Amino acid sequence: MRARDLAVDYEAVSIDSDALVAARLMAEHKLPGLLVLDEHGRPRAILPASQMIKVLVPGYVIEDPALAPVVDEKHADQLCRALAGRSVGDCLPVDAPPPPIADPDDTALEVAALMARVRSPLIAVADQAENGTHLLGVVTAAHLLHELLKASGS
Amino acid sequence: MRARDLAVDYEAVSIDSDALVAARLMAEHKLPGLLVLDEHGRPRAILPASQMIKVLVPGYVIEDPALAPVVDEKHADQLCRALAGRSVGDCLPVDAPPPPIADPDDTALEVAALMARVRSPLIAVADQAENGTHLLGVVTAAHLLHELLKASGS
Repeated sequence: MRARDLAVDYEAVSIDSDALVAARLMAEHKLPGLLVLDEHGRPRAILPASQMIKVLVPGYVIEDPALAPVVDEKHADQLCRALAGRSVGDCLPVDAPPPPIADPDDTALEVAALMARVRSPLIAVADQAENGTHLLGVVTAAHLLHELLKASGS
Repeated sequence: MRARDLAVDYEAVSIDSDALVAARLMAEHKLPGLLVLDEHGRPRAILPASQMIKVLVPGYVIEDPALAPVVDEKHADQLCRALAGRSVGDCLPVDAPPPPIADPDDTALEVAALMARVRSPLIAVADQAENGTHLLGVVTAAHLLHELLKASGS
């Protein structure tokens, strides 16, 4: 069982995509995060849904939750306006690391070891050739668990 | 919109549950993690699927991935045996923090602020009374995003 066999399609957005479209995608598909691709289609980052929530909440409320009641309900209903005119790239933390990338030929154990080491819920599988990076798909922790359980007949 | 209205059912396991049963639950429902309850039914931790993967991978392979090919395919197919006889509690990191807990009366903004502050994909909603803690459900980041988008008509 190789990474290429484990890779499945996963919702991905470009770093230039509209932040509101990305938020809708997460919300509709109940995704804990999205894979973000750079302008060349290379895996650039993982955007967790909790980070999207962070973009919506006024900074002073995150720092001091006691101020939350100060924001009236009408304003609270309009939190998503914070996404208007923003791109996915604008929503990423400045220090967002690139997602871990496995080689298509990596074994299931190598993918599992990479996932365990970086504690990532998601590994991108990509061919990294001289002429560019070609994304094959992703391996989620739950999917890898599924395949490992199947392999061991559990 | 209050935390009690946002809370939904979520797959939870007891800290004493069989680890293999918990792994199957994650795999079958494609869950990025499970809510772990203590012996009194109180939220105790979140067990990410990536942590479950970590339990399966031999420690020396996590430390030195170059050793992965040393593990032959037959052994690799039996990784899930690492779960036999273990409980969910055995799979948690020793320093696993309790999950963030919102009060049922907290507003959506308070829940969002808590989620943003602790960068958690999941918030438990529970009544914390003197006679014990009563879990109402959880709010996932994707579900909260869904409700906030709906409230703002986006």
